[in-house]
Amino acid sequence: MLFRRFASTTARRLPPTIQQLLAREPDPQTILTVTGHIKSVRKQKRVAFAAVNDGSCPEGLQAVLSPGDAHALTNGCSVRLTGRLVQSQGRGQAKELQVDKCDVVGTCDPEAYPIQKQALTTEYLRDHVHLRPRVESIASTLRVRQCVADAIHDYFRYEGFTQVHPPIITGNDCEGAGETFKLSPVAHRAGSSLPPTEFFDRTAYLTVSSQLHLEAFAHAIPRVYTLSPCFRAERSQTNRHLSEFWMLEAEWGFIDRVGDVCDIVEDAVKHILNHPRLVGDLELLWSNADAERKQGVLQAKGATPWARMSYAEAVKELEKAKQKFEFDPVWGKPLQSEHERWLADEVVKGPVFLTDYPSGLKPFYMRANDDGKTVACFDLLVPHIGELVGGSLREERVDLLDKAMAHHGLDRGDYSWYRDLRVYGGAPHGGFGLGFERLIGWMTGIENVRECIPFPRWADRLLL
Amino acid sequence: MLFRRFASTTARRLPPTIQQLLAREPDPQTILTVTGHIKSVRKQKRVAFAAVNDGSCPEGLQAVLSPGDAHALTNGCSVRLTGRLVQSQGRGQAKELQVDKCDVVGTCDPEAYPIQKQALTTEYLRDHVHLRPRVESIASTLRVRQCVADAIHDYFRYEGFTQVHPPIITGNDCEGAGETFKLSPVAHRAGSSLPPTEFFDRTAYLTVSSQLHLEAFAHAIPRVYTLSPCFRAERSQTNRHLSEFWMLEAEWGFIDRVGDVCDIVEDAVKHILNHPRLVGDLELLWSNADAERKQGVLQAKGATPWARMSYAEAVKELEKAKQKFEFDPVWGKPLQSEHERWLADEVVKGPVFLTDYPSGLKPFYMRANDDGKTVACFDLLVPHIGELVGGSLREERVDLLDKAMAHHGLDRGDYSWYRDLRVYGGAPHGGFGLGFERLIGWMTGIENVRECIPFPRWADRLLL
Repeated sequence: MLFRRFASTTARRLPPTIQQLLAREPDPQTILTVTGHIKSVRKQKRVAFAAVNDGSCPEGLQAVLSPGDAHALTNGCSVRLTGRLVQSQGRGQAKELQVDKCDVVGTCDPEAYPIQKQALTTEYLRDHVHLRPRVESIASTLRVRQCVADAIHDYFRYEGFTQVHPPIITGNDCEGAGETFKLSPVAHRAGSSLPPTEFFDRTAYLTVSSQLHLEAFAHAIPRVYTLSPCFRAERSQTNRHLSEFWMLEAEWGFIDRVGDVCDIVEDAVKHILNHPRLVGDLELLWSNADAERKQGVLQAKGATPWARMSYAEAVKELEKAKQKFEFDPVWGKPLQSEHERWLADEVVKGPVFLTDYPSGLKPFYMRANDDGKTVACFDLLVPHIGELVGGSLREERVDLLDKAMAHHGLDRGDYSWYRDLRVYGGAPHGGFGLGFERLIGWMTGIENVRECIPFPRWADRLLL
Repeated sequence: MLFRRFASTTARRLPPTIQQLLAREPDPQTILTVTGHIKSVRKQKRVAFAAVNDGSCPEGLQAVLSPGDAHALTNGCSVRLTGRLVQSQGRGQAKELQVDKCDVVGTCDPEAYPIQKQALTTEYLRDHVHLRPRVESIASTLRVRQCVADAIHDYFRYEGFTQVHPPIITGNDCEGAGETFKLSPVAHRAGSSLPPTEFFDRTAYLTVSSQLHLEAFAHAIPRVYTLSPCFRAERSQTNRHLSEFWMLEAEWGFIDRVGDVCDIVEDAVKHILNHPRLVGDLELLWSNADAERKQGVLQAKGATPWARMSYAEAVKELEKAKQKFEFDPVWGKPLQSEHERWLADEVVKGPVFLTDYPSGLKPFYMRANDDGKTVACFDLLVPHIGELVGGSLREERVDLLDKAMAHHGLDRGDYSWYRDLRVYGGAPHGGFGLGFERLIGWMTGIENVRECIPFPRWADRLLL
């Protein structure tokens, strides 16, 4: 997407990044300064080549300099190079920097540097999380995160949504204390004889989902979304769970069918996958991944509509399967990961929306269907990952909401504010939550969400 | 700013919002559907007028309908109106909706509705935080937040920055335990006989600033920023402190002067203040505020460079003041709020960067100046608010960093990762943190930051 700035000034304050430079025509007359880190050096008799990158793009820049200048360069050192951008003589790049002056700004002992050039294990890089972004694939992932966030903002702004900031600290313990982080009591000022006490007027938790707060917004500004951190104190360790993760959540009013929510999800994710700025980084990341993963994403981003089937139909498919599952598929029981993976990987071979689950399997706020047994909800399953998005219509009928709260053993007083939203000018509405790191993992082919976020947190593991 | 979508599809999936409709030419031939909430109804003999809004813009839309249709409309109910957008016959709006069909989607008992039309106190609205976004000024503030966030992304993308997501849960207790939220031990699975234990391998805190993490990013991707939540367990209650607030933080490499950081801050904030989409909402909010506040912002957004003075010069100004301060201004002592406000409100009458504070007043990571007494830092003070932004160059010289850590009594082992950033290809760098809610408060004239965030949290107060 072309970037256009509305202010009258068009001159940039900072010198161009390598990404910005590579978008220019070569011009041997113009003296430029390039800053960044050295990724590799190759010395020949009369000339030397150094790969320099400032993290702005996957390619980096080839610098051509004298062997004398190259002498001081080591992998990992930071440099300020002055020179001219010219058509490259060699293969592998269109442009290169003819260096006139080479300053090493910060040295890097090549023997001691923890980021050596040979392949480093994933586990080793997790242990060096502060240096890890210097590795190409991790830097790529960070750029992909930015690009996906940009695409999300593009899409939702275009559809008339307002981005809002729901709270992180909340008094709602949405999903049962076992999986929620709680804040400790806080000490009083030095010298106080009081013991530490609750800081707020009630127990405070870290949010597990912004949905209920988004519903409050959506009754004033009927289209809202957020991309913000969520937290789960879940001790089990899988390659798709983090204790701190980001979630895209959206909520909007005046819709009548759960398919309306699926439409927006499918549109939004396809919009993201088709973002032109992703191409270079995805190619880099796919080169480390299973070819099948890449093919799956290329197929999913095309015009063909994604499959949709009801939970009931999915159970039938599972019952028909020749595959032996650990858990038998039965109507009314939760689908296991093995079931979800089999549906997406083997039956549909692509993304699939499963809709209309039995009400007993889903939270109180999902809208009851007329059959009295199911709710108007969906999970979006994708190959290799399983659940990527969950969403539903929300129950807007006060009598049915009261019944659902009683059925789930919830205290109506705790949710009086949530009822108010319906009592005073309620409207049918719905929304969804998408796991940001799972999306990154699915589209890049990265195996574990711990590589999809810069500082991953999981049980027993907190670095920095 | 014109929004341009890169995908080939240009048709919107959702019907237009009122903001999108108002940008269209009136067309009596096209049948439209508008959804939203009723803000007021005015009935005449043969015709009735209803103000309807969907939160997409401050103006809302005037709907013209028959008195019979208007009968069912009450303040706060939600509606679906079908009709045609026409040139308005009346004053006060250019276009209006001639309604053919009026459906009340959700009723609202006008007697019981907590959001009555007469002015409601700030305190009352804080108590009704879930309904508060239905009040015009609060909805305006939410749109201003979105617009400022958009302008931030525009500015930093243009200057070659990458947006990153530093962690919220951190093992660093940056500013002393008294002001940091700590996570409670977490229970094990039901049935386990183990008592609750620390979830991570160390005590976990909520971040008070992402700066140190941003520095790790900035040594791989030399220009990074984040707009993300921060937390302070500070019990004192002022009109400019929250326990949960958002902060814009940026960090970038290869700069040499603290003035380089000030340049970017001034540029970025002016860019935000000049965003054309802000106009309507700022006019609405300014109409509730002191006229002087509006004037100050109009002046600050102009081309005139903002004032800059050193801490030493500021202390001299304070010593000269005829004003009697509660605390005497003395070189080497912190500036008090009364000093900061006097400098911005009375001396400069506008934003002012105060630079080069005594090193004893500032954290260990700020870069030592050659005078051996001060550090290369700044605070940006603005009228009525005081400190809006703080920033500095960061100490990149390992020997001086070690000295500063020893001086501040910090354990070098805890910060070995932070040292590594310098040891392996360090570069001179700097950055800043800007309080998002303070910025919103300053530019809108809102008196208390509790009205600048949708769900404010402060000591002893946690709703929803």
